[in-house]
Amino acid sequence: MRYARCARDEREFFAIVEDQDVVEIDGAPWEGPTTSAGARHPLASITLLPPVMPRTFYAAGFNYKAHNRHHEELGYDPVKVGTHPEVGYRAQSALVGHGCAIVKPVDVEGRFETEAEVVAVIGRTLRHATRDEAKAAVFGWTIGNDVSAREWQHADRTFWRSKNADTFKPMGPWIETDVDPLQSTTTVRRNGVVDASFATGDMIFDPYDFLVEMTKYITVHPGDVLWMGADGNTPMAVGDVIDIEISGIGTLTNTVAGEVAGETERTQR
Amino acid sequence: MRYARCARDEREFFAIVEDQDVVEIDGAPWEGPTTSAGARHPLASITLLPPVMPRTFYAAGFNYKAHNRHHEELGYDPVKVGTHPEVGYRAQSALVGHGCAIVKPVDVEGRFETEAEVVAVIGRTLRHATRDEAKAAVFGWTIGNDVSAREWQHADRTFWRSKNADTFKPMGPWIETDVDPLQSTTTVRRNGVVDASFATGDMIFDPYDFLVEMTKYITVHPGDVLWMGADGNTPMAVGDVIDIEISGIGTLTNTVAGEVAGETERTQR
Repeated sequence: MRYARCARDEREFFAIVEDQDVVEIDGAPWEGPTTSAGARHPLASITLLPPVMPRTFYAAGFNYKAHNRHHEELGYDPVKVGTHPEVGYRAQSALVGHGCAIVKPVDVEGRFETEAEVVAVIGRTLRHATRDEAKAAVFGWTIGNDVSAREWQHADRTFWRSKNADTFKPMGPWIETDVDPLQSTTTVRRNGVVDASFATGDMIFDPYDFLVEMTKYITVHPGDVLWMGADGNTPMAVGDVIDIEISGIGTLTNTVAGEVAGETERTQR
Repeated sequence: MRYARCARDEREFFAIVEDQDVVEIDGAPWEGPTTSAGARHPLASITLLPPVMPRTFYAAGFNYKAHNRHHEELGYDPVKVGTHPEVGYRAQSALVGHGCAIVKPVDVEGRFETEAEVVAVIGRTLRHATRDEAKAAVFGWTIGNDVSAREWQHADRTFWRSKNADTFKPMGPWIETDVDPLQSTTTVRRNGVVDASFATGDMIFDPYDFLVEMTKYITVHPGDVLWMGADGNTPMAVGDVIDIEISGIGTLTNTVAGEVAGETERTQR
């Protein structure tokens, strides 16, 4: 099943995606059984929002070996990959949906890049989880673009603006429940041309490794998201169209726009 | 005015704190004018929740000179304090209210400490703010305890468990709107004995400096919180009672409990 978070006529609602339509449901999809009895709208008539606004926004970093080699080849300090997964955090304020512009701030210089990530959407409260409990607690999967401004990433003490500026976290287009993304392929296209392609499951620690480790100390809640890290970086320039396709989930598409000083618009909902 | 977020009889609501009572209001206090026409309850009959569950949880780090000197005296690398404020993030999942236990995980070793922080609660949407706009957008002030497990803080790549384990972010007891905390004094008491006392306003960058810089890149939303960093560290042991008093705001009190393996309880709401 595919679930989207939608905006239409100033209203926001969750919906089941059926072919070229969406069908409204009550509440959030992970809160209980859903039926197709709600109002039906053409997919083309609604705006796709980030499929969930998480309470806590978790992100794995440095979770693909090839990505880490690339990082070192560029002359950065080797990444400390420990013997257990260590999660990080991103900002809710940076989330935008499928179709929204990624706005490049006027003062970003140097490498401005896409990182294509599969995202686990949590459906159950989880603490001290076993691997089986962690598997059962993932409601479904979506796609994230961990947009990164590399000069800021390496110059600043934190990732506050390098990875968390407005519009730097596109997520969508929807949540797919019937897929095993560890068997999927992630493909990044820049203006229709494939720039990167890798096995989505080629992670150092998989989502269940993370959830087992995280929940030793942290309660994970329904609606939380866990971004799984990326293999490869795709450069982006103003005017580009970036597609991230993960087989079995869908394609997250965003354009890259330049910020116009004094005219920053808000696109988030 | 003082505003609290309360739980009573399985319900949650915002309320005005009047002397020894709370008076229910509709919605969140920053959403519009509030009146004292709602149901009245004795303060002693309600549970004080974290006064807001922020969409995005911002935290300043290394924002008091004396704190940074202490950090270096302990042999850690000097902190890179830049020419502009750099914000960080904490996890919503770690928030608990006044009166809740801080649960020390079974495997925490070494220094386990309180950092006493004043917290700005945002009341308006803010982007590209001037200093005056930043001042006008702060709805009120509360108190936070940035509980820190130092061995994890220095051993791990991220602050995921050192500062974001469950119960590691007490916040409360309420939001005070009629105070200038830059003129306040922060006092930390361990089991009734003063352990630290400092001028709350003795920051490297003040809250408005942060908001001006943050909103160059980030939209800040009503209900977001900005923790302002701490001067000093107070050690904590299981059984301790920790009070953080900020003059003009109130006192945040939490006890320290030991985690019992296999019996972790959830206290967050």
